[in-house]
Amino acid sequence: MTPPPAPGPAGFTAYGPDGPDGPDGPVGPERPAGPNSHEGPADLVITGCTALTHDPRGQIVFVEDATIAVRDGFITSVAPGAHDPGGSPTSTPASTPAFTPTRTTHLDGRGTLALPGLINCHTHTPMVALRGLAEDLPAHAWFNDWIWPVESNLTERVVGLGARLACAEMICGGVTTFADHYFAMDEVAAATEESGLRAVLGQAYFSTQGPEGRAASLDFALRQRGAADGRVTTCLAPHAPYTVDEPDLAATAELARRHGLLVHIHAAENREQTDNSLARHGLTPIEILERAGLLDTDVLLAHVTGLDTARDLPVLRRAAERSGRVAVASAPRGYLKFGWDTTPVRALRQAGVPVGLATDGAASNNTLDVWESMTLTALVQKSVERDPTWLTARQALDHATLQSARAVGLGDEIGSLAAGHRADLVLVDMTGPHTQPVHDLAATLVHSARSADVRTTIVAGRVLMRDRELLTLDVPDIVGELSGLLPELVDRSHGKRIQEYEG
Amino acid sequence: MTPPPAPGPAGFTAYGPDGPDGPDGPVGPERPAGPNSHEGPADLVITGCTALTHDPRGQIVFVEDATIAVRDGFITSVAPGAHDPGGSPTSTPASTPAFTPTRTTHLDGRGTLALPGLINCHTHTPMVALRGLAEDLPAHAWFNDWIWPVESNLTERVVGLGARLACAEMICGGVTTFADHYFAMDEVAAATEESGLRAVLGQAYFSTQGPEGRAASLDFALRQRGAADGRVTTCLAPHAPYTVDEPDLAATAELARRHGLLVHIHAAENREQTDNSLARHGLTPIEILERAGLLDTDVLLAHVTGLDTARDLPVLRRAAERSGRVAVASAPRGYLKFGWDTTPVRALRQAGVPVGLATDGAASNNTLDVWESMTLTALVQKSVERDPTWLTARQALDHATLQSARAVGLGDEIGSLAAGHRADLVLVDMTGPHTQPVHDLAATLVHSARSADVRTTIVAGRVLMRDRELLTLDVPDIVGELSGLLPELVDRSHGKRIQEYEG
Repeated sequence: MTPPPAPGPAGFTAYGPDGPDGPDGPVGPERPAGPNSHEGPADLVITGCTALTHDPRGQIVFVEDATIAVRDGFITSVAPGAHDPGGSPTSTPASTPAFTPTRTTHLDGRGTLALPGLINCHTHTPMVALRGLAEDLPAHAWFNDWIWPVESNLTERVVGLGARLACAEMICGGVTTFADHYFAMDEVAAATEESGLRAVLGQAYFSTQGPEGRAASLDFALRQRGAADGRVTTCLAPHAPYTVDEPDLAATAELARRHGLLVHIHAAENREQTDNSLARHGLTPIEILERAGLLDTDVLLAHVTGLDTARDLPVLRRAAERSGRVAVASAPRGYLKFGWDTTPVRALRQAGVPVGLATDGAASNNTLDVWESMTLTALVQKSVERDPTWLTARQALDHATLQSARAVGLGDEIGSLAAGHRADLVLVDMTGPHTQPVHDLAATLVHSARSADVRTTIVAGRVLMRDRELLTLDVPDIVGELSGLLPELVDRSHGKRIQEYEG
Repeated sequence: MTPPPAPGPAGFTAYGPDGPDGPDGPVGPERPAGPNSHEGPADLVITGCTALTHDPRGQIVFVEDATIAVRDGFITSVAPGAHDPGGSPTSTPASTPAFTPTRTTHLDGRGTLALPGLINCHTHTPMVALRGLAEDLPAHAWFNDWIWPVESNLTERVVGLGARLACAEMICGGVTTFADHYFAMDEVAAATEESGLRAVLGQAYFSTQGPEGRAASLDFALRQRGAADGRVTTCLAPHAPYTVDEPDLAATAELARRHGLLVHIHAAENREQTDNSLARHGLTPIEILERAGLLDTDVLLAHVTGLDTARDLPVLRRAAERSGRVAVASAPRGYLKFGWDTTPVRALRQAGVPVGLATDGAASNNTLDVWESMTLTALVQKSVERDPTWLTARQALDHATLQSARAVGLGDEIGSLAAGHRADLVLVDMTGPHTQPVHDLAATLVHSARSADVRTTIVAGRVLMRDRELLTLDVPDIVGELSGLLPELVDRSHGKRIQEYEG
């Protein structure tokens, strides 16, 4: 017997650990309505779900039996009980919605939890083509003997197919926004357009490319800004302080300021990189970024597992206070695989630096499963801090929502189910035997639910997956064509590398 | 567009890292056939899958386009190409099987990988009723303030419902055998019977119960041995060296020897327990077990994260050489949550001690997802050993198959898809975007696939889940009744505890 798709709200409790009358009780916040919120009927109404919302202080509030209304790509209201298309609450039960179903799509959310769509704050989507190719290797062999030789073979078609497969994977796993840092990014922009996802895209470059690398990155950022009906945001994407020299970093900082662009860069990926940087330059990678002026821009730092806490934390704290926007993307799975330290999330939080969730590329991480990143962040942080009371389930959900949205520079638009925010959300099935019973919704989400429990994925009010059916991409077609290109892709007989890893 | 259920064997490659002509090439082993293997037609034939098998040295061999035949609960053959019901290979393509479909069930395995069913080597199934109840707590508060007070409220009905919900979760996650250590175990035996799973069951006891605890454990073990058409194996289940005194442990060892029973016990769960044991007794928990004679029996030790490697490893090595069967069950998720060390898998392997995969109870682990235990074992072992080349994907699959089967005392019956073994297996969907493309099947299974990719679960030749449809248990019914019993279950106002945790 299969569990019914929607067992009704009685199937699980929807309170925080303090119960229905506690501080996490069921009454949700009302926020200023977004663009066009009071004009005409809703495009999409979801009824009967439990909604994960935030109060004005950013604390998580679960709203039971919620109705979510969406118009023109924005959330217009999230509130308990049924609503009419204009967003006014009614007393009609969720099972008999009061709105007129003219142009309005209705999703029955019973048995599900509505969560802001997950945000993959650092990935290289086309690298799904290399998933599982180079395993059980230390980082230097992984880069030098496998990844960088194979990336010499990249074609635009492989990048495009990889990005499409990655988009399919992310939609299935409840991701609605991804920050990508790779080559041939016009192909990734096209995949973003086609898939319906939201993305923050940057064309990667090394200093070995000369000034042309930086120029191409800027050209991409300016040309694709606002593409895909505004779902594409762009950034500058220098590879890392060990592959981009300081004059190039300084020039990048100047371009970022001039054009109002985010900079997305790998930094202090592991302790070895920090030690090598200290030996070569007398500065940590973070200090190099500071001296180059990059920490005066909006900057997203990938990984930061090699933080020299004594030297670097004051630098990052100053940057956070000065620019208001230095952030870190953490992809904990790969750090475990490489035997590295992990991102020092507690220290970064204390320094006022948002830490977003990420997967890195599938060549190292094997999946683009941000749900797993959330779970692993909770587990690994407890472990490394030797403190079971730290990084609670609610803190993990904070990283998955508000902090990830801030990390990719979209803190005012996504990451929270609030009126006026973009309608990027997922419906998570809470009826599976592995998620029942529910004593604490936050714990259920972080420690029991899985990416495969995401039933429905919505971006800008458009349904990209409904009841696990992908609506925008054809996976067998993509896999079929990609498979034919793999032998040429993985050929390393030419002896070339796109770069050298010394760390 | 949903991926088709069976895209055909071209959808993924099925070779080991050495390719089709390497040592892991597609030709599978032939083993002696099991009971009744040549009498009459097969009950069940699976065609067109890739099969994970083992060669005579125990090395993993992936057999492409395999046909698996099952009769009377046993595997009768696993071989490339299509087979007739009697098990003789034919040249007929898998898509047009040559057998006469009289009483034979045919499963089209195209697009899937057949894996020996996962084995949960240490759990407390009824504790799913407490999933998520006590979070973000240190072990002493978790035990003393939450779990042991709440367990004072246990009723047989709650145990039975919890066990049924757990069985549903495990079937959905590809588990076919579980080793359970809890109270009111007749209820768990009934749930095993009803669910169709295989189980190794032991009635837990403390010395505070007096000799009656031990006697009840023995009574259960002798009475339920071979229940559920032989799917139930039983054991003695003293709780732990810190809750069962040495005379009681010695008496247990004597009973185990006399009745040929496995002993399943928590041991050296964390470093604090080992330190406390040394302070109180001058012996580690492992040394106490040795002195009590328990290491001369077949014994399954849960957790062992607090191993004193200098003192305990020689003891365990001697026990492994002497009895041939001392084993460890490792449940890595909970160790991360509590901020503990993890099971020293590398040292135990070197000492000749099999390490099986486990989840512990859902009150600490939050799920009974053995697939996640496999993945976390690979990730955490790489991390703690600071060695990315250690605990490869193939080693993780070794723990999930042969080592887990040995750990629960069923090494000759389960854990391998081989003629003569019990027909306990799962079919894993390999067509999802998160598992494509496949460069290395072992890496795909361990690092990309998820428990939710298990499509079909088979125990003793009986299909318990088909295409994600559970066939033996009604989850909404179980959850509905259990939910009504939760307020009484979690009431701690009585101030009682079933035990005191000092470690």
